[in-house]
Amino acid sequence: DIQSSVKDFEDLTEEFKTFSASHKEYMQKLDELNAIQSKCLKELTHQRYRLGIIKSSLKKFSKKPESKEISEEIEKGISRRKIQLYEMEEALPKKNGLYLRIILGNVNVSILNKEDKFKYKDEYEKFKFIVNGIGLLMSLSNIFINSRVLDLIFMFMLVWYYCTLTIRESILKVNGSRIKGWWRAHHFISTVLAGVLLIWPNNSVYYLFRPQFMWFNVYISLVQFLQFRYQRGCLYRLRALGERHNMDITIDGFHSWMWRGLSFLLPFLVGGYVWQLYNAYLLYELSYNPEATWQVPVLGGLFLTVFLGNVITTLMIIPQKLKE
Amino acid sequence: DIQSSVKDFEDLTEEFKTFSASHKEYMQKLDELNAIQSKCLKELTHQRYRLGIIKSSLKKFSKKPESKEISEEIEKGISRRKIQLYEMEEALPKKNGLYLRIILGNVNVSILNKEDKFKYKDEYEKFKFIVNGIGLLMSLSNIFINSRVLDLIFMFMLVWYYCTLTIRESILKVNGSRIKGWWRAHHFISTVLAGVLLIWPNNSVYYLFRPQFMWFNVYISLVQFLQFRYQRGCLYRLRALGERHNMDITIDGFHSWMWRGLSFLLPFLVGGYVWQLYNAYLLYELSYNPEATWQVPVLGGLFLTVFLGNVITTLMIIPQKLKE
Ligand SMILES: CC(C)(COP(=O)(O)OP(=O)(O)OC[C@H]1O[C@@H](n2cnc3c(N)ncnc32)[C@H](O)[C@@H]1OP(=O)(O)O)[C@@H](O)C(=O)NCCC(=O)NCCS
Ligand SMILES: CC(C)(COP(=O)(O)OP(=O)(O)OC[C@H]1O[C@@H](n2cnc3c(N)ncnc32)[C@H](O)[C@@H]1OP(=O)(O)O)[C@@H](O)C(=O)NCCC(=O)NCCS
Repeated sequence: DIQSSVKDFEDLTEEFKTFSASHKEYMQKLDELNAIQSKCLKELTHQRYRLGIIKSSLKKFSKKPESKEISEEIEKGISRRKIQLYEMEEALPKKNGLYLRIILGNVNVSILNKEDKFKYKDEYEKFKFIVNGIGLLMSLSNIFINSRVLDLIFMFMLVWYYCTLTIRESILKVNGSRIKGWWRAHHFISTVLAGVLLIWPNNSVYYLFRPQFMWFNVYISLVQFLQFRYQRGCLYRLRALGERHNMDITIDGFHSWMWRGLSFLLPFLVGGYVWQLYNAYLLYELSYNPEATWQVPVLGGLFLTVFLGNVITTLMIIPQKLKE
Repeated sequence: DIQSSVKDFEDLTEEFKTFSASHKEYMQKLDELNAIQSKCLKELTHQRYRLGIIKSSLKKFSKKPESKEISEEIEKGISRRKIQLYEMEEALPKKNGLYLRIILGNVNVSILNKEDKFKYKDEYEKFKFIVNGIGLLMSLSNIFINSRVLDLIFMFMLVWYYCTLTIRESILKVNGSRIKGWWRAHHFISTVLAGVLLIWPNNSVYYLFRPQFMWFNVYISLVQFLQFRYQRGCLYRLRALGERHNMDITIDGFHSWMWRGLSFLLPFLVGGYVWQLYNAYLLYELSYNPEATWQVPVLGGLFLTVFLGNVITTLMIIPQKLKE
């Protein structure tokens, strides 16, 4: 009967009043949080600025024997302070870089708590894993099937995949990841590379490169699986340890695991780099073919760039990790 | 002298202590906010769910003459409540849709305050304005210069532009924009369309379509400028009025301005739609050309789809606006 509906609505209205009160409190808390957040951000900048000035004024004293000791002590203090500031920054929002500002606009993508940061990174690794699996299947079938449409779909996927990676990695960066600039640049260059492949007319020169390229993709996909295992292992172990970046304590167990993982992975990576160099070389040769279009030397140059960047960055990582 | 550096560092350490305290308070507030936020979200869902149930149970009573009046009163109450809930939701974070989850992952892109929402939308309009300007220059020069590389750069830009639009519009959607699904679908289809253009081999059929296509782009860019003026006008006026969506008050001044803007814009939009239809027709004719590749009918179909969607959506908007 209608009276029960009336009663229901009245009850709900009572509940709504409590909800309204909570919501009001929430709005107030949100304002308060914003105020104290801006205050913290200002103080953080101030601390960093002052530390920089003190540090540079210390330079002249660290050489004089009478003030050397005190100077070193202050410097230690500064380093410690910097680590503390770094940790405090984790919970504060950061501004987007230029790339994200262009793609997404000025929307805040900061993740303010550690557990969510971890989840986001984990999801990123899984995303790469899944798309890699699809890429592997596609390049494998492209080896056995010769269909222009399949080729194009594969290359479209590569463009989309690498483009998405650059966006996600920029978000990771905003959230404090120490991912090297080169890997992000690498994915950017790969987007361009896949784009040029897409518009390469399918003449005889293309078909001279195609088998090589498909096998290369199969190999890279397999290497990415190994990389996934390694990166995810690092991620979960670091979380379990609750290790913070830049700490001077080395956690032996983790480091030995990491070195084992890395030594296992490295030969395969080097294999990939050699293959990239060989791609560049083959394209260079093909560029003398009378049917070659401008895409051929451009692709060759891009593969060479990727090869050089990868080798240099990987070589730089090893001594850096040895120092840790 | 070093003592002054020591003094500086000590002073800074004092400041750091205050900062540390603020930061601790901030962290605490952040936790509190998250707690009350989840509570509000739960209550919001609950309210909506219960309202739905009451509403459906009212259906049987609204026909009986003895309960008609009460039933109508409750229904009014429900509508009012729904508007209130909608407004309260503005300050609460929303989940990303599937598309954003795939591209960005599970990062929170909700903007919780009205002023920032406005700024984000304004920036989105400016972004379209700028890229449109570049697009206009490029299509104009493509009319006078015939360079394959310039064509390709232009089409790459289109792919990138429309792809970025779909991302930004999904973010707008999460933040409560009432943008129609079709416009987002339109930009998605345009991305595909530009992608297919990119891989269309530049044979004679392409050159039969090219001049037409470049002039079409010039026209569309000009229409977009008009559209920019209109949309931005709406945006600023709505902000000045502080108008809330779905309110039954009509603000006469705004509405008469909107109708003038719309009537000015509409003929130009219709011109664009006619052009899209003509593109589809021309591509259909060209698909019988012996040199035509699969891209020709596909592009024709895409232009037809865009034409139909645009016409239907624009026709639907008019009566809807008349009712408001
Ligand atoms: C060499 C390598 C194994 C080192 O990995 P690592 O031990 O994680 O390196 P770092 O300690 O410098 O990592 C710093 C951060 O960058 C990330 N990172 C490192 N290499 C990355 C890559 N190629 N892509 C994305 N993120 C990467 C790490 O996950 C870590 O993130 P975090 O700060 O959020 O925890 C790794 O860089 C790698 O696999 N590179 C090869 C990639 C490649 O060349 N692929 C092409 C085909 S062969
Ligand atoms: C017809 C038209 C002028 C109506 O605009 P409007 O009055 O803003 O329409 P609505 O009231 O339905 O707008 C609802 C929301 O969608 C947005 N919106 C409407 N059309 C949009 C479009 N084409 N692209 C992006 N956003 C759009 C509005 O800005 C508004 O956003 P808000 O909720 O954040 O304030 C507009 O949809 C339009 O310009 N369409 C034509 C686009 C087109 O066809 N271009 C192709 C080439 S000719």
